[in-house]
Amino acid sequence: MSDRILAAHGSGGKLMNDLIEKVIRKILGDSVQLDDAAILDTAGGKIAFTTDTFTVTPIFFPGGDIGKLAVNGTVNDLAVLGATPRFISCGMVIEEGLDMEVLARILRSMRAAADYAEVSIVTGDTKVVPRGNADGIFINTSGIGILSEGATRQPITPGDSIIINGSIGDHGIAVMAERNNLSFSRGLHSDCAPLNRLIAAVTRDFAGSIRFMRDPTRGGVASVLNEIVKEGNFGARLTEERLPIREEVHGVCELLGLDPLYVANEGKVLLIAAKEVSEEIVACMREITEGAAAQIIGTITDDFPGRAYLETSIGGSRILPHLTEEQLPRIC
Amino acid sequence: MSDRILAAHGSGGKLMNDLIEKVIRKILGDSVQLDDAAILDTAGGKIAFTTDTFTVTPIFFPGGDIGKLAVNGTVNDLAVLGATPRFISCGMVIEEGLDMEVLARILRSMRAAADYAEVSIVTGDTKVVPRGNADGIFINTSGIGILSEGATRQPITPGDSIIINGSIGDHGIAVMAERNNLSFSRGLHSDCAPLNRLIAAVTRDFAGSIRFMRDPTRGGVASVLNEIVKEGNFGARLTEERLPIREEVHGVCELLGLDPLYVANEGKVLLIAAKEVSEEIVACMREITEGAAAQIIGTITDDFPGRAYLETSIGGSRILPHLTEEQLPRIC
Repeated sequence: MSDRILAAHGSGGKLMNDLIEKVIRKILGDSVQLDDAAILDTAGGKIAFTTDTFTVTPIFFPGGDIGKLAVNGTVNDLAVLGATPRFISCGMVIEEGLDMEVLARILRSMRAAADYAEVSIVTGDTKVVPRGNADGIFINTSGIGILSEGATRQPITPGDSIIINGSIGDHGIAVMAERNNLSFSRGLHSDCAPLNRLIAAVTRDFAGSIRFMRDPTRGGVASVLNEIVKEGNFGARLTEERLPIREEVHGVCELLGLDPLYVANEGKVLLIAAKEVSEEIVACMREITEGAAAQIIGTITDDFPGRAYLETSIGGSRILPHLTEEQLPRIC
Repeated sequence: MSDRILAAHGSGGKLMNDLIEKVIRKILGDSVQLDDAAILDTAGGKIAFTTDTFTVTPIFFPGGDIGKLAVNGTVNDLAVLGATPRFISCGMVIEEGLDMEVLARILRSMRAAADYAEVSIVTGDTKVVPRGNADGIFINTSGIGILSEGATRQPITPGDSIIINGSIGDHGIAVMAERNNLSFSRGLHSDCAPLNRLIAAVTRDFAGSIRFMRDPTRGGVASVLNEIVKEGNFGARLTEERLPIREEVHGVCELLGLDPLYVANEGKVLLIAAKEVSEEIVACMREITEGAAAQIIGTITDDFPGRAYLETSIGGSRILPHLTEEQLPRIC
């Protein structure tokens, strides 16, 4: 463990996991749950609770802005746990000198996102720090969702299908292109969107067949798969030719030497489900805006236990390692 | 309204209220509750929900640090609403290069504060930003408390007593002295402490007689009193000679031209209660560590409706205005 905080400690990769496991949870205790949201027993039932601070730069990017991202990010962390998102908080750290109209634009965007996702922003906090201390604005959104008693989840087993609701890598690449003024990047848009409607539809019809759901944000699809396989006696194989990756995203990734499988998404859910119903799940997803391009992209395997890997178009296999370094800083 | 964010927009004074009323709530909507925490109806009952981001500098100060402050601040926002604090989140924005041992010290402090206040830290988020973007560390703590059905609160009426659980202005002055290396300031300590035990004891015995509770943090005692009187047809009179203010706090305030009534506290509750039981409430508070120096400091009056004012030791009256400018930046 390094004796200083490195950029990679914030990446969603291995160093970040080490920080969480070896420093944060070791000190704060096991009450800190490892998912992006915690499930809590209250006198009246179960709720889900999550927190996320957004430091994205630039604040505005094609397809979204820090406000929309903050609301949807928190909605999604609750939704993937099977909770119905209800209440959101808004804690802002604003840099002195920020244009009031910029703040208003961000707040309008938060309101629109909250209305669309059918959640209420119910409490907030505002801090102002001197110039040079918050790079415009940081926004923390914490959220509460209501859990109904659902079917008990069956464990992931070889043969299960890996499903995603649409194209991969859009958010990270859209932010990166905007930040670097890549003029050829027209057509790139963040996928920033709330997943609660999509997930509610899928879980209503297929609750007993869904093994796992997670939004592949920081660290992307490959990092989520690494999380899944590290605990189990199975591997996760993606099929390259089935991966929905936009031409523009491919282009920017090749130019910058990035792998879209490690790039952040902000409107995607990675779902592991029983093979028997996987086609039906995809059909169900495609009926909803946020799932229009849903696709089965891989399978859980007996091969390569503990590994995520890619079956390439030319017939080879490429391991998708648990990355240590961050590819893209400050994309959320 | 200024067209840029000013330091005073983060102060807890009038400009901050304007920002909240005229920009934030106007855009985010009335679902944003005005107290420091929101009360929410869930299927299973009522919960309280709060958020606070801490940007205090320096990170360590006599009597506490940013971690202890973050836990206690959130515990207190829930406790003053009459909720039992239960669950806390921890969202950190860490500046690249922060010493890992500094982070560990802060986390240990959070854990100790959570254990003492009997709350669990259940979920978290970690972002790392480049040097110069977060001034060491910012910590957001959001919190959930459970509300039991209590007695309906009676409105504040002239004759009610104003009670505080101990000395005024300790936190802000301790941080300020530390920041400015005021070597004569030995003996100054932040009052940073959780109020839930104290409030639970008082509300258990006197629920029907308590009109109002609030922790006078940013903007201090005078700002809370201004909040109270602005809605009602009554005034709030403090009696100078009854104010518990430490000699050291007086000294630093005189030197720096500050009024301790506007300085932040982090372990204090301002309580308005029926006069008949106010001595009993003070006696009850004094039995608990956090209320050992409890005191009746004033009364709700028919005079000066809409105003908070001070009855001075020499027999005069001094209005305590709703401040526009911040006295002390970044003390929480």
